[in-house]
Amino acid sequence: MVLFNQAAIVGTGLIGGSIGMALKKNHICRKVLGVSFHKKSIGLAKRKKAIDCGSQNLQIIKDADLVILATPVEQILKLAPQIAGIIKKDCIMIDVGSTKEGIVAKLEKIFPNYIGTHPLAGSEKRGILNARDDLFKNSLCLLTPTRNTAVFVRKKIEELWLHLGARVFFLSPDKHDEALSFISHLPHIAAFALISVIPGKFLNFASSGLKDTTRIAASDNELWADIFLNNQKNLLRAIDEFQAKTSLIKQAIKKKNKKLLNKILAEAKSKREAL
Amino acid sequence: MVLFNQAAIVGTGLIGGSIGMALKKNHICRKVLGVSFHKKSIGLAKRKKAIDCGSQNLQIIKDADLVILATPVEQILKLAPQIAGIIKKDCIMIDVGSTKEGIVAKLEKIFPNYIGTHPLAGSEKRGILNARDDLFKNSLCLLTPTRNTAVFVRKKIEELWLHLGARVFFLSPDKHDEALSFISHLPHIAAFALISVIPGKFLNFASSGLKDTTRIAASDNELWADIFLNNQKNLLRAIDEFQAKTSLIKQAIKKKNKKLLNKILAEAKSKREAL
Repeated sequence: MVLFNQAAIVGTGLIGGSIGMALKKNHICRKVLGVSFHKKSIGLAKRKKAIDCGSQNLQIIKDADLVILATPVEQILKLAPQIAGIIKKDCIMIDVGSTKEGIVAKLEKIFPNYIGTHPLAGSEKRGILNARDDLFKNSLCLLTPTRNTAVFVRKKIEELWLHLGARVFFLSPDKHDEALSFISHLPHIAAFALISVIPGKFLNFASSGLKDTTRIAASDNELWADIFLNNQKNLLRAIDEFQAKTSLIKQAIKKKNKKLLNKILAEAKSKREAL
Repeated sequence: MVLFNQAAIVGTGLIGGSIGMALKKNHICRKVLGVSFHKKSIGLAKRKKAIDCGSQNLQIIKDADLVILATPVEQILKLAPQIAGIIKKDCIMIDVGSTKEGIVAKLEKIFPNYIGTHPLAGSEKRGILNARDDLFKNSLCLLTPTRNTAVFVRKKIEELWLHLGARVFFLSPDKHDEALSFISHLPHIAAFALISVIPGKFLNFASSGLKDTTRIAASDNELWADIFLNNQKNLLRAIDEFQAKTSLIKQAIKKKNKKLLNKILAEAKSKREAL
């Protein structure tokens, strides 16, 4: 089902490229355009059938009905004013950034037909080479409308993500950032900190427990530094709670309080099993 | 190749049961006996071809040439004196406990032909129902001889684990416990603490990052409470280092020190990628 005539993806990496592949595979758009500031990436995106044509020049998106901003958050904010001067008046805009409060507040001032989206898909791997047309299948996409979001934009973009294979859930930008600080950003902090303190001489003994616990520490450091700083307020609170719980476990071990230790672990176990 | 005439497994759970299945499948013993204090477990172990015959009574192990102690550490220490009064004089003893310093010191006093072993296999799942004959294939088994360990015991048990499919690495009981505090016990602490602080209302948004990072928090709480208390000294130090690193990351976020944050994350990333 064709939802848009022309869609343009700014930033044809893992997420942007996977959106392009899914758009084309499911015939959701007549034409998919791509913008990347890396020339090589455009050629790769074409070869992966993520885009029909691409350019390093933003002018290519001037006739698009849908523009997907899929570069890192910092770059989205830098490009937004320039993009606003290029697109059609009725063009619908979305971004796929990992934090929403700051970016939504800024982008909805710049673009009248904008809604923030955050597909909870992806992996520690980046780049167009890892893009897949089924990346969003059975995943969850969070949409963050505000009172300024037009109903037709909200409905059309909900439909878009459903067609890309995702389940859709709506929540406010600030709730989104609070939720993500716990379910995504804090686990990344834990993984980065954990692998950092393992003495190199013991890494040869690593088994699946350590590997799974630290898998996401192989994620892109610059991208995650940006995300952490963009969600500073929520994340600092989440880290505090994590450290308080870790200290509680530490004290139970120090005092050989087996009863308390067992209680904390049992609660954690049943919570994890319910996931 | 037959290495032992009769082998007896005390504790036919995930690890004990998997050893039995691998012993029988690879014809490493003529007969495999099992002791479990849960009657049901004996029937299941027979059905899974982990043992030839089993009993709730320890007397069944009296003619064994090899006894594998595979109950939780606390129980091993309780049973050891009784077992010493039952076994043949030249019987070789091993345990498969997750900590080694305390147990090796005690067991090598009780059993003349003893060596500590620790197969780094298993999962968050427990019990004979999850036992597999290939659990140790391509895994690592740590052997912890001391100056009291007879050479023939060390050689025979190395051969045993090689035949069970594992790679074998020797290290002292205290080095073992130091290594394990970092590569296994600390990741469990992190996983238990992490899942504990995720607000229930956000659990529906959990993606693969959170799931992988906390998988091992579904492990048995009593077993892990014992392991943590048995490795108290090393683990407290490992937790301290983990908390210090987490605090460093927190401070970098608080001060919006992107350069420092990026440096910490980049180092973590390259360490994880080398795993």
